[in-house]
Amino acid sequence: MIYFNCDYTEGAHPRILEQLCATNLTQSVGYGEDEFCGKARELIREACRTPEAGVHFLVGGTQANFTVIRTALRPHQGVISPETGHINVHETGAVEATGHKVLALPCGRTGKISASQVESLCQEHFRGGMPPEHTVQPKLVYISHPTENGALYTLAELEALYRVCREYGLYLFADGARMAYGLSSRDTDVSLPDLAHLCDAFTIGGTKCGALFGEAVVLPNPELNADFRYAIKQNGGMLAKGRLLGLQFLALFTGGLYTEICGKADEQAYRIADACREAGLPEYVPSPTNQQFFVFPDELLRQLEETYVFSFWEKVDETHTAVRICTSWATKEENVDALIADLRKLVGKP
Amino acid sequence: MIYFNCDYTEGAHPRILEQLCATNLTQSVGYGEDEFCGKARELIREACRTPEAGVHFLVGGTQANFTVIRTALRPHQGVISPETGHINVHETGAVEATGHKVLALPCGRTGKISASQVESLCQEHFRGGMPPEHTVQPKLVYISHPTENGALYTLAELEALYRVCREYGLYLFADGARMAYGLSSRDTDVSLPDLAHLCDAFTIGGTKCGALFGEAVVLPNPELNADFRYAIKQNGGMLAKGRLLGLQFLALFTGGLYTEICGKADEQAYRIADACREAGLPEYVPSPTNQQFFVFPDELLRQLEETYVFSFWEKVDETHTAVRICTSWATKEENVDALIADLRKLVGKP
Amino acid sequence: MIYFNCDYTEGAHPRILEQLCATNLTQSVGYGEDEFCGKARELIREACRTPEAGVHFLVGGTQANFTVIRTALRPHQGVISPETGHINVHETGAVEATGHKVLALPCGRTGKISASQVESLCQEHFRGGMPPEHTVQPKLVYISHPTENGALYTLAELEALYRVCREYGLYLFADGARMAYGLSSRDTDVSLPDLAHLCDAFTIGGTKCGALFGEAVVLPNPELNADFRYAIKQNGGMLAKGRLLGLQFLALFTGGLYTEICGKADEQAYRIADACREAGLPEYVPSPTNQQFFVFPDELLRQLEETYVFSFWEKVDETHTAVRICTSWATKEENVDALIADLRKLVGKP
Amino acid sequence: MIYFNCDYTEGAHPRILEQLCATNLTQSVGYGEDEFCGKARELIREACRTPEAGVHFLVGGTQANFTVIRTALRPHQGVISPETGHINVHETGAVEATGHKVLALPCGRTGKISASQVESLCQEHFRGGMPPEHTVQPKLVYISHPTENGALYTLAELEALYRVCREYGLYLFADGARMAYGLSSRDTDVSLPDLAHLCDAFTIGGTKCGALFGEAVVLPNPELNADFRYAIKQNGGMLAKGRLLGLQFLALFTGGLYTEICGKADEQAYRIADACREAGLPEYVPSPTNQQFFVFPDELLRQLEETYVFSFWEKVDETHTAVRICTSWATKEENVDALIADLRKLVGKP
Repeated sequence: MIYFNCDYTEGAHPRILEQLCATNLTQSVGYGEDEFCGKARELIREACRTPEAGVHFLVGGTQANFTVIRTALRPHQGVISPETGHINVHETGAVEATGHKVLALPCGRTGKISASQVESLCQEHFRGGMPPEHTVQPKLVYISHPTENGALYTLAELEALYRVCREYGLYLFADGARMAYGLSSRDTDVSLPDLAHLCDAFTIGGTKCGALFGEAVVLPNPELNADFRYAIKQNGGMLAKGRLLGLQFLALFTGGLYTEICGKADEQAYRIADACREAGLPEYVPSPTNQQFFVFPDELLRQLEETYVFSFWEKVDETHTAVRICTSWATKEENVDALIADLRKLVGKP
Repeated sequence: MIYFNCDYTEGAHPRILEQLCATNLTQSVGYGEDEFCGKARELIREACRTPEAGVHFLVGGTQANFTVIRTALRPHQGVISPETGHINVHETGAVEATGHKVLALPCGRTGKISASQVESLCQEHFRGGMPPEHTVQPKLVYISHPTENGALYTLAELEALYRVCREYGLYLFADGARMAYGLSSRDTDVSLPDLAHLCDAFTIGGTKCGALFGEAVVLPNPELNADFRYAIKQNGGMLAKGRLLGLQFLALFTGGLYTEICGKADEQAYRIADACREAGLPEYVPSPTNQQFFVFPDELLRQLEETYVFSFWEKVDETHTAVRICTSWATKEENVDALIADLRKLVGKP
Repeated sequence: MIYFNCDYTEGAHPRILEQLCATNLTQSVGYGEDEFCGKARELIREACRTPEAGVHFLVGGTQANFTVIRTALRPHQGVISPETGHINVHETGAVEATGHKVLALPCGRTGKISASQVESLCQEHFRGGMPPEHTVQPKLVYISHPTENGALYTLAELEALYRVCREYGLYLFADGARMAYGLSSRDTDVSLPDLAHLCDAFTIGGTKCGALFGEAVVLPNPELNADFRYAIKQNGGMLAKGRLLGLQFLALFTGGLYTEICGKADEQAYRIADACREAGLPEYVPSPTNQQFFVFPDELLRQLEETYVFSFWEKVDETHTAVRICTSWATKEENVDALIADLRKLVGKP
Repeated sequence: MIYFNCDYTEGAHPRILEQLCATNLTQSVGYGEDEFCGKARELIREACRTPEAGVHFLVGGTQANFTVIRTALRPHQGVISPETGHINVHETGAVEATGHKVLALPCGRTGKISASQVESLCQEHFRGGMPPEHTVQPKLVYISHPTENGALYTLAELEALYRVCREYGLYLFADGARMAYGLSSRDTDVSLPDLAHLCDAFTIGGTKCGALFGEAVVLPNPELNADFRYAIKQNGGMLAKGRLLGLQFLALFTGGLYTEICGKADEQAYRIADACREAGLPEYVPSPTNQQFFVFPDELLRQLEETYVFSFWEKVDETHTAVRICTSWATKEENVDALIADLRKLVGKP
């Protein structure tokens, strides 16, 4: 079987493994205070043009999300999130387990929310004429960039979110589990420095973007950075051999490897999307990144699934199904060629 | 001003105050282990025909709700609730503050959810074909009876909820903050023994039904009752002078006072509803209990609000507003007379 | 039986009951925003000489303690407490249930901790040379005044605690569940304005000092007061009929009732203590307040316990037991006379 | 500098790195449901002779500890731990952050607690004659094997703990962060099957015993295993590329690598200990594992620390300091030779 179901079926980019092997017996101090972590932090601060931002390396995405959110919120405060946001649907209630309500907003199939939605919610809470203390106080806006459905915010959309957050005293936090696929998209005007300028916190994903595992948490807002190492430790995110994380981000941020390898994945995804469109398959939702969502007739899907693994997304009607087709830094061009050829053959457009 | 905005603007029924005064200097043991609490427990068990059920007296409704829910759930489990459920919107995220997600279901204006909605959610979680551990496991169904919008479940609806809960191993918990107004409704087939038979836990509200304060938590399911006193204490619900609560419920459950006084409130509410209908005002949502919801032209509302206080519910369009009109055990018939007369006068139907 | 085991075996001071009865059918707004609460707040601010302090009325002591502590602490922070502090031993882990470690310090039988103990703990954490993030960060000092064992801090001791708290950025919080018995002690130099000046937060107990129930939380530090009403609501401490609490504190702080009635209790306690000393019984720990602790030969205790109820404290050796003898605002002088007479008779010193 | 300060200064045993490299581009399913994890689970079940036990791979020790403890406890329950237990002092209150009190027992320098200590605490809580609900209910006993101070429980001691746990309905949980050094000690009668027979849960440490990172959680008690994957996910411990953990434990449990490499570390530690004893240095606490604790004159220590890094443990008097000297699977024999030679030279016993 050939896997197109997700972007974490392989291990790490070879350059990362090389580094792990080369430094394996080097002795270093623990808990992320080694020189590899130090250098990786510097490279990330440079890439973000935020010389003062806190940069921390955590093991996984769920952990990074709830550690940041828990740090930002007081007990009576909650997090605004798109309904399909990862924290709202795929983290087993990790945010609630730290005591905070997720205030979910409708987001359609893109997985994006708008500044005006955030504004309405805040107006109702803070200026609705009712005593506000009977409801959860909104304090942080969580977005994913790219979203779980492959979409990207435009710079203008992010700036509008930034403004409404400033107006109501909210933090803005972007989950960048697939950040590299967004940064290298052919259809984005958002850069790392933009995110660093507009967000109080964001993550730069490693697990889905070439690393064995690991997420970099970037904290341009010093309020969130103070004492953040306590939060990492308490929440089980402080790796004893922290250098494992530092080494990986050091490799990814050396010579632009991070966006280079994920840009290639985006291109392979565009090829698949073009083939789907040619085959007359409707888009489930448009995506400019490595995840593509198309609606397949069930019979066609059954035939393709003899060879390829996709990710089930939604049954759209009795005889059609939306699936996610994912490429990654590790996707082989010949596998994409084969998928496209098989698709063409099955729909009779060779 | 005459208050029809809620059912807790006065103190307690006089018979309760008498009891408090009569026993004020009697010495008794603390923490709800006194003889007044003991007798009140017995009366409630008799009224529910559950000789074995746990009965506990807590100070308030939010506290009762989160203490029961927290006791019922393991950390990875959540509570199914109607979107307008009190725990979901008016308790400042108290359930989430104990670590649990509220899984909200659409409920229209009645505030009720159906067995089939619960079943769909459970099927998707437990039998959806996806590894379930990435999402919160449903474990308890929270309903209000009457709902926040005055509606009542029928016995058949409760039985259906009971069955789906049994099928998926869920607890059923009914918030009875306004229980007395439901039990004494002219339009219900649900009795206390029915609730005790179908629910794993439910509350019998005192605060809104004649007491100074206090909610009785009834736990027919012994799993929930074991160690429940630890939960009360830990969550700040164990009154040192517990007898204050026992005394009040003792008075309310002696001679049927509880439903007698709230049945009168229901009748006053029906009179107001009839007058509204006569005046041609549309029902916002039908209610067989002490809370009535009607849509007023804004100008009419403005005139009435010179004398009467209602509870704003929703702006339904540019020139109309839905309000809640509430009676209680303490509502004076002459105030209702006055309201009805003024309404008739203002709409020209004297 | 005559109860000397604790200070909450009776109801409320008659003047409080009168007020409850007189205002029972007055309609008022809910949740502590009524005029009774308003006036009570003003009286308390005047008594504390803190015109700006936040004053909130909560139902019970455990609730007041964990609500304040939870509000003050970030997730990685903990509370320093004497080992015998109420939060450490008699609140079923309520503070831990909100996510915070209690950092317990030895306190002997008095239940008091010193500034130098706090300083040592802080020095070790903040300046110990180890990365601090592996241990809980101390952020609040919890003391009881009077302590659970009847002792009082001197003004000098409180000032020293204040200074070390300022030095290390800690909050100082005094649990005043028995505050009135401390303020009216013949052996104290600490007044309410002193506490308001030195503490970031403290409580003024009602339950044990003449009220049916209720604790006033005073928050001289505006950081803690901001959004505190959210915290009250979320933690189940916001009474719908909040005026019940306001009314009681209004009565207690009118004409000095609060300290007047508890001063009498202290005097009765001193009489009992004098009789115990005369009878040759050793003090378990000296106390200048309404709780007295003496060591009794078991046989003598058995004889007294035919008529009187005391509180078991500790088995000190094979044949001797320390007990707590408690008076309260409701203690009758003739009961104290009887106890003293019986004690004298039994030890042969009539 | 040569590091003897801890056992996680290097990366992984070469055989693990080989496996990571060899399988790097193999596609596999995520979240620990791949075949590598499957095989590793089987090997561990065999080594423990518990064919039915749950085996889960988590990223780190703090995470493993609080995930197990949180799963085992209800909100009103706490965990009994030695005062020096890792969860009590070096995990930033992670257990409390999940809502549970740590009930710490004195343990001297060994870090061990006895069955009779546990029994006393349980007797006081459950049979002390006081209503138990005002204090935290003990429900789990946490021990470390080896302890943080290098000590090991004997089989008889573990059996006694097992019996008292059964008597009072407590779970027994052993933190095996350094398990391999204990299993391969020359001075132990405890095997993996013993632990699996006596404990409800225990961990088999990878991070300090040859792996890059990772702890295996073994759950012989099916109550704890049910739904444990939800707990892992919710607490941020479920690695997307779970095979990274499976692969490492597969390598460690193939051909006895786990105890083989750590047995060598123990031997190097014994050589160092012998040299310290020869040099007349007093043992701080005896240890049969890879951590050795000796008391050095400060001047001697200063000289050694020009070349070697130890871990500061405690200042024992004005001129002496206790330090920890640690070996690991990666310790080079020549470095031990050098340390011993330098020590002999400095104390004049070459």
